[in-house]
Amino acid sequence: MRVLVTGAAGFIGSTLTDRLLSLGHSVVGVDNFSTGQPEFLEGARANPNFVLREQDLLDLDALVEAAAGVDLVVHFAANADVRFGPDHPRRDLEQNIIVTWNVLEAMRRNGVKRIAFSSTGSVYGEAAVIPTPEDAPFPVQTSLYGASKISAEGLITAYSESFQMEAFVFRFVSILGERYTHGHVLDFYKKLQADPGRLPVLGNGTQRKSYLYVQDCVDAILLTLEKAKDRVNIFNLGTNEYCQVKDSIGWITAHLGVTPELEFGQGDRGWIGDNPFIFLDTEKVRAFGWAPKLTIQQAVIKTVEYLQATPWVAARR
Amino acid sequence: MRVLVTGAAGFIGSTLTDRLLSLGHSVVGVDNFSTGQPEFLEGARANPNFVLREQDLLDLDALVEAAAGVDLVVHFAANADVRFGPDHPRRDLEQNIIVTWNVLEAMRRNGVKRIAFSSTGSVYGEAAVIPTPEDAPFPVQTSLYGASKISAEGLITAYSESFQMEAFVFRFVSILGERYTHGHVLDFYKKLQADPGRLPVLGNGTQRKSYLYVQDCVDAILLTLEKAKDRVNIFNLGTNEYCQVKDSIGWITAHLGVTPELEFGQGDRGWIGDNPFIFLDTEKVRAFGWAPKLTIQQAVIKTVEYLQATPWVAARR
Repeated sequence: MRVLVTGAAGFIGSTLTDRLLSLGHSVVGVDNFSTGQPEFLEGARANPNFVLREQDLLDLDALVEAAAGVDLVVHFAANADVRFGPDHPRRDLEQNIIVTWNVLEAMRRNGVKRIAFSSTGSVYGEAAVIPTPEDAPFPVQTSLYGASKISAEGLITAYSESFQMEAFVFRFVSILGERYTHGHVLDFYKKLQADPGRLPVLGNGTQRKSYLYVQDCVDAILLTLEKAKDRVNIFNLGTNEYCQVKDSIGWITAHLGVTPELEFGQGDRGWIGDNPFIFLDTEKVRAFGWAPKLTIQQAVIKTVEYLQATPWVAARR
Repeated sequence: MRVLVTGAAGFIGSTLTDRLLSLGHSVVGVDNFSTGQPEFLEGARANPNFVLREQDLLDLDALVEAAAGVDLVVHFAANADVRFGPDHPRRDLEQNIIVTWNVLEAMRRNGVKRIAFSSTGSVYGEAAVIPTPEDAPFPVQTSLYGASKISAEGLITAYSESFQMEAFVFRFVSILGERYTHGHVLDFYKKLQADPGRLPVLGNGTQRKSYLYVQDCVDAILLTLEKAKDRVNIFNLGTNEYCQVKDSIGWITAHLGVTPELEFGQGDRGWIGDNPFIFLDTEKVRAFGWAPKLTIQQAVIKTVEYLQATPWVAARR
């Protein structure tokens, strides 16, 4: 099939692009390289089944052109910066809401009927039920990022109903692994590069979070696209475990062979809108026979190994 | 206090404006008169505590100016057209999502800390629990209107968390009464004016919906603004009863003294995304001592009487 991937030069987008190409599909990759990395598409660009379109998703006309003749849109482009949302509140509106509307319009005008979307466990806000299932009690949004993703989900499912599309919405925990370019592992890695003797930590280190290895994430997406048959298919993706921030620090420092003094902040929130406990119920996707191959600890170490082997990532960002 | 009311010339916005003025508050009314009616502000304009600003809410600079020195924003401006959403999908994005973001930005830039917002029972989609409480299972959006309103709710609650605002979100059933300018009562009234001998009905007439009288709605909003004390306060507003479309037809035709042949459509949905059963659990607002004064039947008849006494409404729309 012919797949349009938005955010094709991003962490997850490029990984999925490579996998789709390896399975023999054609991929039209769209990226504006605002956070995407050209290096991540080096393999894809050598493949004759890949077309790169460097364009901004706010340009609807260009997007309508890109979506011509496509069987599936994988909409993974986003502003993925949760923590600094309040510093630039318009970014989530533009990059996550208006852009998603543009993607849906480009599909509608081309008669494209299938969309896969990268949502987030952040849409559950401070969840009343943990592990949190897909039909948890109606949450209150606590971050601009979560709000922008639930907006995008709403537009996608309403378009599905209005224009007979099939929608696959994936609510991710944080993803780790090769091509990881932002998040706590990179933050700690860079701080320890600068000074292995001390490590300032946002919050008191007790925040509990769940993580998933990027190849496990891609496995789950492809399996769900094959097996899920409703008009609207919403799936949590994550591991069956969580860790505390201080556990992750322990794994990272042990792997690097450093023993910094840990300087914890106050309270169980690293920043405004930070969620002190994210742990998703993934029974729904597991019913298809999927299970992650890596534990959180293995995925954290894999990520550190990647950052060590690929020094430009930490240098650039 | 000084209140900015968006959609001040609308059905509910103008009714609330009049009430606020009668209580001695100052009101800055904003409307672009795309669906608002100048006649609804005749009383307000005679009051020295009222300022009308004719402007479009997509103009952020003008909105920032309007919000200066305000204590509370009542954001009631919206595209309220659920049924024809698929005919102009960009309208919900612009009028309900981007405009809400502009309202929040105008508040943030002026340090305004309180917002009341008109959401809708449509955000529950096809609810799994009926009567539907505020913390019903996480719904799937089935209409562009519902999707745009849940987007706006998310932006409002995320801004509250990020910028220490107080938010009051009201999820209305359909509202009836004086200044009613769109919905099934007007549709039936106009059809019967044109031909009292027959009445085409969208769907099979078994759709079950709940309604609320506009003055009861305004009572509930003002009481909640006084009594609710959380940072984010989400309240359903509706009556403790529902009716079928064919009940409402019976009340309307009996009041008008006509006996049309009823021409029903197929199925229990009047249009794509129509919700066959809307009935909200309103225990939360009732705990403040509020109860509606009018039944649905009384509110329907009040609406017909208003349309009879105000012929320009049916003629214009």
